[in-house]
Amino acid sequence: MVAHVAVGRPAKRIDAPPRLTGQERFTADLKIPGLLYARPVGSEYAHARILGVNKDAALALPGVVAVLTVDDLPLHEPAGATQIKLPMARGEALHAGQFIALVLAESDAAAEDGAAAVEVDYEPLDPVVTLDQGMSHESPQTRETAAEVSAEEAAMHNADAASALEENEEPLPHNVSNSVQFQRGDVTQGFAEADAVVELVIESLTVHQGYIEPQACLVTVEPLGNLTVYTSTQAAFYCRTRVAEAVGLPLQEVNVVPMPVGGGFGGKFVLIEPMVAAAAVAVGRPVLLQFSRMEDFLSGNPAPDCRIEVKLGAKRDGTFTALQSRLIFDTGSGNASPLQIAAILHGGYYRFPNMEIRGFEVLTNKPGAGAYRAPGAQQATFAIESAVDELALKLDLDPLEIRLTNCVVEGDPRPNGNEWPRIGLKETLEAVRAHPAWQERRQALAAGRGVGIAVGGWPGGVEPATAVCRLDADGRITVVLGSVDLSGTNTTFAQIAGEAFGMEASEVQVTTAPTSAAPYAGGTGGSKITYTVGPAVQKAAAEARRQILDIASQHLEAAAEDLEIVDGVVRVKGVPNATVSLKEIAALSMSVAASHEPVYGTGASAITESAPGFAVHLAEVEVDDVTGEARVVRYVAAQDVGFAINPASVDAQIHGGVAQGIGWALYEGMSYDADGQLLTATLMDYVLPKAGMIPPIETIQVEVPSEHGAYGSKGIGEPCAIPGPAAVGNAIRDLTGLRVTVIPIRPEVLARRLWSAAD
Amino acid sequence: MVAHVAVGRPAKRIDAPPRLTGQERFTADLKIPGLLYARPVGSEYAHARILGVNKDAALALPGVVAVLTVDDLPLHEPAGATQIKLPMARGEALHAGQFIALVLAESDAAAEDGAAAVEVDYEPLDPVVTLDQGMSHESPQTRETAAEVSAEEAAMHNADAASALEENEEPLPHNVSNSVQFQRGDVTQGFAEADAVVELVIESLTVHQGYIEPQACLVTVEPLGNLTVYTSTQAAFYCRTRVAEAVGLPLQEVNVVPMPVGGGFGGKFVLIEPMVAAAAVAVGRPVLLQFSRMEDFLSGNPAPDCRIEVKLGAKRDGTFTALQSRLIFDTGSGNASPLQIAAILHGGYYRFPNMEIRGFEVLTNKPGAGAYRAPGAQQATFAIESAVDELALKLDLDPLEIRLTNCVVEGDPRPNGNEWPRIGLKETLEAVRAHPAWQERRQALAAGRGVGIAVGGWPGGVEPATAVCRLDADGRITVVLGSVDLSGTNTTFAQIAGEAFGMEASEVQVTTAPTSAAPYAGGTGGSKITYTVGPAVQKAAAEARRQILDIASQHLEAAAEDLEIVDGVVRVKGVPNATVSLKEIAALSMSVAASHEPVYGTGASAITESAPGFAVHLAEVEVDDVTGEARVVRYVAAQDVGFAINPASVDAQIHGGVAQGIGWALYEGMSYDADGQLLTATLMDYVLPKAGMIPPIETIQVEVPSEHGAYGSKGIGEPCAIPGPAAVGNAIRDLTGLRVTVIPIRPEVLARRLWSAAD
Repeated sequence: MVAHVAVGRPAKRIDAPPRLTGQERFTADLKIPGLLYARPVGSEYAHARILGVNKDAALALPGVVAVLTVDDLPLHEPAGATQIKLPMARGEALHAGQFIALVLAESDAAAEDGAAAVEVDYEPLDPVVTLDQGMSHESPQTRETAAEVSAEEAAMHNADAASALEENEEPLPHNVSNSVQFQRGDVTQGFAEADAVVELVIESLTVHQGYIEPQACLVTVEPLGNLTVYTSTQAAFYCRTRVAEAVGLPLQEVNVVPMPVGGGFGGKFVLIEPMVAAAAVAVGRPVLLQFSRMEDFLSGNPAPDCRIEVKLGAKRDGTFTALQSRLIFDTGSGNASPLQIAAILHGGYYRFPNMEIRGFEVLTNKPGAGAYRAPGAQQATFAIESAVDELALKLDLDPLEIRLTNCVVEGDPRPNGNEWPRIGLKETLEAVRAHPAWQERRQALAAGRGVGIAVGGWPGGVEPATAVCRLDADGRITVVLGSVDLSGTNTTFAQIAGEAFGMEASEVQVTTAPTSAAPYAGGTGGSKITYTVGPAVQKAAAEARRQILDIASQHLEAAAEDLEIVDGVVRVKGVPNATVSLKEIAALSMSVAASHEPVYGTGASAITESAPGFAVHLAEVEVDDVTGEARVVRYVAAQDVGFAINPASVDAQIHGGVAQGIGWALYEGMSYDADGQLLTATLMDYVLPKAGMIPPIETIQVEVPSEHGAYGSKGIGEPCAIPGPAAVGNAIRDLTGLRVTVIPIRPEVLARRLWSAAD
Repeated sequence: MVAHVAVGRPAKRIDAPPRLTGQERFTADLKIPGLLYARPVGSEYAHARILGVNKDAALALPGVVAVLTVDDLPLHEPAGATQIKLPMARGEALHAGQFIALVLAESDAAAEDGAAAVEVDYEPLDPVVTLDQGMSHESPQTRETAAEVSAEEAAMHNADAASALEENEEPLPHNVSNSVQFQRGDVTQGFAEADAVVELVIESLTVHQGYIEPQACLVTVEPLGNLTVYTSTQAAFYCRTRVAEAVGLPLQEVNVVPMPVGGGFGGKFVLIEPMVAAAAVAVGRPVLLQFSRMEDFLSGNPAPDCRIEVKLGAKRDGTFTALQSRLIFDTGSGNASPLQIAAILHGGYYRFPNMEIRGFEVLTNKPGAGAYRAPGAQQATFAIESAVDELALKLDLDPLEIRLTNCVVEGDPRPNGNEWPRIGLKETLEAVRAHPAWQERRQALAAGRGVGIAVGGWPGGVEPATAVCRLDADGRITVVLGSVDLSGTNTTFAQIAGEAFGMEASEVQVTTAPTSAAPYAGGTGGSKITYTVGPAVQKAAAEARRQILDIASQHLEAAAEDLEIVDGVVRVKGVPNATVSLKEIAALSMSVAASHEPVYGTGASAITESAPGFAVHLAEVEVDDVTGEARVVRYVAAQDVGFAINPASVDAQIHGGVAQGIGWALYEGMSYDADGQLLTATLMDYVLPKAGMIPPIETIQVEVPSEHGAYGSKGIGEPCAIPGPAAVGNAIRDLTGLRVTVIPIRPEVLARRLWSAAD
């Protein structure tokens, strides 16, 4: 094995200093002369016709410049074309808080006052709020106008998007916007062969991505009418397309400057940018909209609530015989939910000879469902992993062994028939089996701590990408990219490029370029950036290195294969004095009358086979038997990461995923009343886990190399955010004997169950 | 010959709309919150010790934030290292107007008031003002501290920089900073063989580049201390290097955003940027300095004054036998003058079997000499072309024929021994010979109009360059470059790229990227951008086309060589229905799970052989015999342009060059008094030619293709700015019989000569 200089070693994140010292400049920190501040007017009703908007009082306030409804926005919507998707009511409010108008003013305070002064005339309509209502043939329509499903958007987070959608025979309820079905074998037969069968119905509430920086976008109108979009986005190029479409400009007249992102987690794949851009065009001035925390709860794009009915059978030895599930996902007022990927993962971790999965997306009068780090996977996994655990108990089998007996390996089919490529689920399960926390679970239980495990997997996304690796005049290496750095990927890319030149990451500069000048990369999501941009960077660096050695070869009159790069100097192996520095090579290629082409390596990838990643988590919990409060006291997170280019960054990703998983398990959930009003619209009501709620986390990095990723790496962002709810639920079950089927598992629910059990 | 779609046809300049409608945003138009306005305090004396700077009164004024002398600037000057070059006095003022301090204030007016309130304590020293003083062994030193010559800077505009510098035997005067010498054969013998000899001494005044937009630079200090430099520069990457050196930052922490340039003409190759950057760092706030017109006259970097003594001999048939010349160029307080290239051009247009050229650069207490479109060439050409004309008259030969007899062709040596490559001087002379204006010159003279011709040539610059050609999501082509567009080159590049795709220039987007993301290109100067970046664009476009056809080939299942691109669609030749649009190809390579690499072509050039360009101008003049006022009434400008990619743009370049040449000939000249005080520091005193002073210009585009330029193109910016003074002088000689040897040819001088002649 070749020793690595840069990759495979912990590297400090190159963006840490500005973030840690509070000096990073986020979108809303930008000061632009003439800037107008936008504040939305949100709908008071979950469902209502907008009969009129009286702007007069607002416009009379000092500093208020404009009050814009959707009709005032210069949207480019040719007759017959699809309506531009905006988080704004078009004659009809589809959820409480949906924007009816935007007030633009010279200050944020004036805009706030203006928004309060706008008078909206509503005709309230009956809302559809719950999944039961959504699935009912008797409930009202959630909207009077038809919605369109954006396949592009649906595909953004789903690697397995190409699965079969089959038509249901029976007519679907009118608020069902989409359905899926996956079938294999004969489930009736399968359950007949089973020695034990468990049935569970799990529910999961709406969960917000909980990013620290709310949605924020600033659009300036340049002198010739072209737009510059400064935005906290995960997807610069996609944002450019969406904005250009909305305002009817050629792509090239929209330049998206991706700003530092204060957390995205799937929630920042274009939400407000087209609306803000249209507002800026309408008034010809720069406009900034940054959500308040409440607006982000009311009008963001959270992970949808859902219900999953699961029925699972196995033989006495633990071999699964059949899975039959029904998934209902809440699309809210949006266009799509992660139903399909949820269904595929739900039935994808284990070999089920017989399987029937049906899924439904229902429209309700709630905000549109969005992507949340591993969209759909937390819910799907909570369901299957709770059921597997119950089945193990029923059969008196070791819950880890039953998983090892059934877990998928390379070549096993997913529900949609696609075979899993080489994956590390088995190796990861084995890693947890060997861990003391699992070995000593009996002692833990004796000491009042339950231990649960759960599996989580993510198929991984793919999208072509290009990267540039350039030599600068001072002999330093600069990587130029079009991908947004959410989680330290630029540091990872600095390592990959550095490796080619025998340099550490800190010696390599990485530029995230605006769309006007950047090489293409897809949105940062789906655990795909390291996996797909990484090889592009690797190739670009190799190409730059080749160009450098070619120049050095001519300069030193030595064969390129006899050269090496050490400490920024190219030298002939074994000839200490025959050297030329990278700075000299820069001069030989970038100065007047120089005779070599500038060093400018490009590399691209178009990987079509994704590299799925699996995590196995172990949670150890205590429960206060009076208050019902569960506390996670120990956590082991094992994950197949392919190859950890930056082990420190991988650990950090896992830590974050675990914290979010614990949030799903115990704390986070958006509640709506019967009128569709959000009851948890502030961080006082909606509980994000704080540092004290998260135990020490032990990580185990399993490395089953991917075929296409740089050095065998694969995407690692999503898997670690998946098993948490199930692992915690299983640990509570282990400790209390109680199976709580609704996440988050609230103390009051658990307490009532404990009290009943004690009675 | 293949018919071209885009190149070789007139294309509208893509930057014309914002410029023509006044909407272009130049550097000083940028509004940055917290911006400080800088105003300089200029030296009252041409030479003085600075004993003290009292800032108190200035700092007491409202709005004044700082008064910075060079000692207050955080310059990065390690002990023993070369001093950072700044247009600022370091203890000693070297020319009148040199900056002693910069006043930074919240408004331009406050800064102006502050500058007026700064009290400087001087100890005046004797200045060196004239060339005679500079060449005298008895004159004072121009500076008490030694100067360094920047070879890099000297090379920036000189394509033939690599010539021999030979030491003079006799000790040089102490203010001579540099000397050159070129020798061939035996001039004594050569003059002995001559049937006629002429001797002239010509002089040329200091000439300002006369750009409409004065020097302007705005530097912001980003949160982490890195700098963004918005500047009206011809050379973004060079600027980055100079700024980074000055403030001691790694190159990667300086991002230069090249702004639209309102005229450069060689004068904007980094002048104020390092100083403004250091000032911004000193106060930690954004700083804008835009020169007033007077500051640009006082402290710019104009074309230097010079004197050339020329002695030329020929046989009766016109064959030149010897050239002996002595050139003295005024370096001012700067580091370098274009002496060397002037000497090479002076002796380079014709075959001189015997030649001796000596040149001297002298330091004076005037602003540092800068580059002016074809630096040194106007003066050198005025000298040789006046002498050639006189010799033709003396021998009673046709002045065009004597030039044809002696003009250099491919393989003839330049003074430095380098052979001329394929050039079009002869063809261009023949084109003028055939023109009615030359054919009918006798009739013109009879009608009171003198006709003169002159030759001008420029070696052309070379520097490696890289270009990017990218397919965007909407199927449009974007070219990304690091070169600054001064004269329409981006339109030319759009044509070159468009040609590869069968598109017109207007369908191609060209982005001039900031240095953080741009592919490398050298400064825009020396007639090298089209010649060197052009082939890079051509290759990048060809590579992008290859990538597109490769994807289309797989998609259409047809061989790439059977495909063609028409109207944005790839189609199989002869199979009308087998098509895939560029937009579809974009989707096939830039969307989730797409299977093709994004289309991202790069191309580079490292041409080491320059493509010299020659112009032959014909001027027809009238002279008012009372006032001595000369007026150019007709002008024919023939030029070998290699291949005119955009004939309209080439014409426009020639028009501009002719106008500047007429300015040199008749109007423009900076005069200094004996104390070194500039007498012509406003546009009331310094006469730039106005539209009414420029006659209709007929252009003749001769096309002798270059070997390396795209489609045979070569640099065309400089040659057309060279022959003007000589052509006009020769026309006046033709009309009046008087040889005026000082440019600009002022009416009072000509009038006095006319009156004496009439006496």
